[in-house]
Parts: sequence; structure tokens; C-alpha cells
Amino acid sequence: MDRHIPPAGRWQLAARAHHMKPSSLRELLKVTERSDIISFAGGLPSPYALPIERLSASVERILRHDAVGALQYGPSEGYTPLREAIAARLSRQGATVPPTQVLITTGSQQALDLVARVLIDPGSRVLMETPTYLGAVQALAQYQPVFEEAPADAAGLLPECMDEASMRDARLLYIQPNFQNPTGRTLPLERRKALVSRAKREGLLVVEDDPYGELVYSGVTPPSLLSMAPDDVIHLGSFSKVIAPGLRVGYLVAPEELMIKLVQAKQASDLHTTGITQRLAHALLTDGQYDAHLEAIRLRYRAQCALMLKCLAEYMPEGVSWTRPAGGMFLWVTLPPQIDSASLFHDALACGVAFIPGASFHAMSPKANTMRLTFTTATPAQIETGIMRLAKTIEARLDMTASRLVTS
Amino acid sequence: MDRHIPPAGRWQLAARAHHMKPSSLRELLKVTERSDIISFAGGLPSPYALPIERLSASVERILRHDAVGALQYGPSEGYTPLREAIAARLSRQGATVPPTQVLITTGSQQALDLVARVLIDPGSRVLMETPTYLGAVQALAQYQPVFEEAPADAAGLLPECMDEASMRDARLLYIQPNFQNPTGRTLPLERRKALVSRAKREGLLVVEDDPYGELVYSGVTPPSLLSMAPDDVIHLGSFSKVIAPGLRVGYLVAPEELMIKLVQAKQASDLHTTGITQRLAHALLTDGQYDAHLEAIRLRYRAQCALMLKCLAEYMPEGVSWTRPAGGMFLWVTLPPQIDSASLFHDALACGVAFIPGASFHAMSPKANTMRLTFTTATPAQIETGIMRLAKTIEARLDMTASRLVTS
Repeated sequence: MDRHIPPAGRWQLAARAHHMKPSSLRELLKVTERSDIISFAGGLPSPYALPIERLSASVERILRHDAVGALQYGPSEGYTPLREAIAARLSRQGATVPPTQVLITTGSQQALDLVARVLIDPGSRVLMETPTYLGAVQALAQYQPVFEEAPADAAGLLPECMDEASMRDARLLYIQPNFQNPTGRTLPLERRKALVSRAKREGLLVVEDDPYGELVYSGVTPPSLLSMAPDDVIHLGSFSKVIAPGLRVGYLVAPEELMIKLVQAKQASDLHTTGITQRLAHALLTDGQYDAHLEAIRLRYRAQCALMLKCLAEYMPEGVSWTRPAGGMFLWVTLPPQIDSASLFHDALACGVAFIPGASFHAMSPKANTMRLTFTTATPAQIETGIMRLAKTIEARLDMTASRLVTS
Repeated sequence: MDRHIPPAGRWQLAARAHHMKPSSLRELLKVTERSDIISFAGGLPSPYALPIERLSASVERILRHDAVGALQYGPSEGYTPLREAIAARLSRQGATVPPTQVLITTGSQQALDLVARVLIDPGSRVLMETPTYLGAVQALAQYQPVFEEAPADAAGLLPECMDEASMRDARLLYIQPNFQNPTGRTLPLERRKALVSRAKREGLLVVEDDPYGELVYSGVTPPSLLSMAPDDVIHLGSFSKVIAPGLRVGYLVAPEELMIKLVQAKQASDLHTTGITQRLAHALLTDGQYDAHLEAIRLRYRAQCALMLKCLAEYMPEGVSWTRPAGGMFLWVTLPPQIDSASLFHDALACGVAFIPGASFHAMSPKANTMRLTFTTATPAQIETGIMRLAKTIEARLDMTASRLVTS
């Protein structure tokens, strides 16, 4: 803990303020918004995947039939019919959850913040998979935990290799089992079973973040950790990827004993999530067309993912490898070890293509020769051009480092 | 600070979780939602004051012309045109503020949370006016400050009586200078001048919360503390009272040196405020009809306030007094000292009328013989009936305590 904290100008800040970091990702994204840049950087849905017409029709209906409900103060726990619809959907997916254990949040970023606020003291140990979601690191870091990396290989977390003392000490383990951000990997069924069984034994609370679970393109996704161990898991979900990020509607499902404090934290945070957007999420989820919409965006993203994989295979020089996600929005590229993707970023930008350097996605020991590519945002034509440009940038860098090796 | 913290069931919670309290107010409000109850309890706008048709028209336009902007991720600082419109409006009211110092928040409750998160360590001293806004106590208490009451009389804070050492020690002073919740009082100009001059001298950061400032019914409201000392004040504003609470759109204006950390805290909290509702607030603020709408709701609330004051004068027994607000939503009733308003609440509910007991509004030493009445939510007919019922309840209680005095 900081004992001597420099003031911000004339004002004395809280110690935690010094653990707040600018999101390097969001700073990068500003650069990549130039119209001449093909961006594989942001984790944005395709603009063509936004259900604009259905949202327009629904909002019109909401303001005609339930305007006062949508516009007055509402309950901190969330709009009851939405909580019920989420519980029902999770139940159909094998996780039996009463609506009273569903809390609606202002995007699943807020769920991360609430979980961290209720569970993390300065110095608390927190287990993170690695690489991991940057927004989670940012939300948790404010509350000054000590991060510890959970053992993993290319397929994700290795529950059998987790240290028993670490599991007992940690306030929570943070994990995205499905189509993980940034790698696109999915935790295999056997590891899920091993994880929940060890977590139960050691008393470890598992925070299962699942924003991409509905975006499946191939195979069958193993059951959620929530469905396997509802008493030991906080499950986070979001409508940002399937409906629209700008709605800021997400949710968490938590064991009953934690709900009271999570609701109090929610109340102190923003009283409740926007009434109109909660009702929009509810309308889309229950009007019978949600699964058709989901199928349409799966079709689009499946094709874009396949195209990016094909282009990578076609254009990338030897020594570059990548993941083959079965869903989600991202794939993860590993470059030859001599290439630092953060410095490559500037070359790529000069060639009109952007990605996120992989070092951003580590709570502790960054790997400099990695990068995250989003395949959902760009059009198919842009994917092809962008991967060609990126491959050329990498080739040029490889030539440069090779010639340096020769001349030195 | 708590050293030995009981776990929540099997889980170890953060120390701050034990400083989170259920809002007694929100619990009370659940009781008062019964249709046979006339409620002066909640701080809700009149349902007749919600600009439903204009919101419908605006949302239709937004989703026709700027759907992708409204539905994708947006900047954490907020929608730029809304920040500009707020800065312009504040400037017309005498506070020169660049749009870059305006941060859009998910209601002004979130602004309170962000300010507290960035500025309060466990044990930090925080000065509060008394009585004070319950939501502020709730937001700040999570971060475990030591609350100290600032000296005040019936007209509000007494800046000349503030202790110099307290001012120097405190991380911030929290105050609502206009039509304060719960009392309805407004800080006089001379006290505002004295407050900012002393705050500047002692290096005290003033958090000026102003959700009701636009709801003026009589006289001229003194200039904001922000306009007097922009470098020493964080100013909070909200569209909840003038447009609709369910939008969850508020804002804060902060000295430049504090903005970076406040934006980082906002980013970690919920990435950004809902895109649609930010654009709705912007549309209503800039379409030229905002002031006409404001005038219409002022007219309504002015009449309701006057009616409630008239009914109080007509029906209340001797020994009951109340404030005469020049704006806002609330007035504050002081009962004879032998009446505890918390126990009176149940009698009143049995008679079909509800209020909030005054003890809820104190960070430290509650005054049991006070209550807050909202004059904005109920209809004129309900105001008359409700105040009659309340007066009868108080009379019955006075008779009871008098007969006890006689028999004992």
C-alpha cells in the first residue's frame, strides 16, 4: 500500500486513485478511428450486426405503453421481467438460477467493479488467468489486490496445476471460459470439471465472465461453470455483443449470500441501470426473434472468422502462429520472439492497419511478441486487405531484424 | 477500520462491504408503493412532468440518424455534444467551464461514487452539512471516511463557524446549496461567498451537488459555488429531476487536475454512460424547447409546493413547523420534540399517507422529530387529503403523549 501519496495538484487523492490506470487500449483505439485505418483493434460488434430496426420498434412500444415505468426511478436489482427472462434463458442452458439471484448492471464492466468492490481489500490475493481481459484488470486494480497468475497452457487454465495455498488465500479467481478475450480459446470440459471440483474443495470463489458465450461458430460449448457449481461461482453476462454495447446492459448471477452486498454496492454506484435500455434488452430477449438475430450474427461472424483464418494462412510469413477460435470476436497471434508487437503497432498504423499489442492483456508478465485481432468489426474486404498489410509489416520487421543479425 | 471481518457465508468480504448499508429510504419506498397510500416519501418527479412525447420523437430521430453512434461503445468522458451543451448552459449561468472539464455520469449518484472513490481513503475526514442527502452518505460511506458535521442553522451551513483544522484535514465538504434534500433550504449569497473564500484559504475541496437548481419557484437563486471558485469546486448536476430519473444521465464538473483520475474511475466503473440516453438529454437540452419544458414543470411544482404549504398551515396542530422552499422537491417538517417520526411513520401508513422520517438524513446525530415531505409526486387532490391525514396522525400522537403525561 502507498503510504506517501503525491497530491493531484493541490488535492490529496485516495491511495486507490494511484492504482487507476488509463486504459492503454482505449488510448490506442482513439488512434485507430482514422477512416484510412483498417482496425482489428477494438472489441466492437459489426455495425451491420446491430438490430437497429427492432430496437426502434421496441423503444417506440416501450414509450407508448410503459413510459412512466421506463422513465421513473426503478429497483436497484433491475427490471423484474428482465431478471426473470435472464434466469429462464440460463436455466434452458442448464444453470438453474432463481431471478432473485440475477442483478442487472450497467454493462458487465460494472459487474466487475461491484464484485471487486465487495470482495477485494488492499493486499487481497486475486488469481487471474493469463493473458486476461484488460477491463477486468482495470476494474480490480482500483481496489489494490495482489494479482497472481494462474497456471495455463495454450488451451487455457490448468486447474490441476493450481497451488493449493494460493487457492485458499485468494479472494477470487477471474476467468473467461468461452472464446476468451484476448486469445479466443475455450476451456475444455475436463478442465472445467477439475476447476469447480478443486474450487469447491479449497473454498475458492470463481468469477466466470461470459460476454461471448452466445457467439458460437463451431462445435458445442461445454456447460458453464455456473451450471456446474452455482454456489461457488459469480457469473457475468452482457448484451453488449449480441444486442449493442451502447445500451450498457449486463448482469451478474451470484450466490444468495453475496447478493445483499452486491445490491447495496449497485445502489451506491448508480441507483439502477437505465430503464429504457433494460426494457429494450427484455423486449429483444422475449419477442421470439432473439435466437433468429443471434443466428444471423453468428453466420456473419463465423464467415469473418473463417476468412481471417484463411488470410492469415495465406499471407503470414513463417514463424507466425495464431489461435483458431470456435466463437467470440478475437484471435491471438504469436510472432517470432524477436518482434515486439508494441513497436510493430506504429509500423502497422503507417501501413493502414491496427491491432492491440498483446502486452496489454497481462496482469503481470506481458508477452511482447503477441497481438489480439478482432474479426467482427471489419468488413470481409477490409479483413483481406488488412491481413495482407499486417503480414507485409511483419515481413518487413523480420527482414530488418534478420539484416541486423547479419550486420552485427 | 475493521480488522476482524465476519465472512458472508463462506466468502471473505472486503472491509468496505461492511460499510455498505441498505438504503432505509429505498426499503421504506417499497412499502409506500401500495396504491391506497398517498406518498410524500420518494423523491420522484410527477409522472405528469415527464416529457414522454418529446423523448419518443427524439429517440426515433436518434435511431434514424445516429444509430451506430448511439449503439456502439462511446468515450468514457461522455458524448461530446452533450458535454458541450452542458458547458454552454453552465456558462450562461455564470460558470465558465470548458467542455473538457465535464464528465457525463450514470446519474449523479455515480458522480458521488466516482468522487468518493478518487478522494476517500479509510479514515479520511469528510465534512457533511446536516441534515444531508442520504444517497451521498451511502456513496461516501463505502470508502470508510470519518464523517464530521459542518456547523449549520436553519438557513444552512455556517462557514464562519467552521473549524480551521477540520477544513484543512478534510478531503472534501459535501453540500447541496440549492433547495437542499431534505430541508428545501437554500444557502444565502453571503454564506456562499464566505464558504468559497474560506475553502480557498484552507485548501478545502467543495463538492457542490445541485440536482434541483433549475427547479426555481420564487426569488432569484444565488450564483453557484462553481461560478465563484471553479478551481476549488466539484459541481454535480443531473437530468433526473428536469427530464427523467430513469434516463440515468448526470454529470460532474471538476478542476482539470482531478479529471484524469475521475475519467479513469468512470472507465473502470461502466466504460461509459448509455449512448441513447446521453443523446436524448442532448436533444432535449438543445432543441430550443428545454426552457419551455422547464417553465411548465416549474409552474406545476410551484403550485403543488404552495398548496402543500397552505394545507400544512390549515391542518397541522400547534407545535409543528416547516420550511418554505423557494424551489426543488422537498420540505422539512419539525414535530414537537416528544414525537419520534420513525414510529409515527407506521401510524401514518395505517392512515394511508407516507413520508420519510428525518433521522435517515443525518450522517451522524439524527433528529428523531423531523420528517421530509415531497410535494412534486402527488396530485393536488392527494396533497390536500394526504396532509389532512398526516395532521390527524400527529394530533392523535400528541393526544396520546399528553394523556400519558397526565396519567403518569
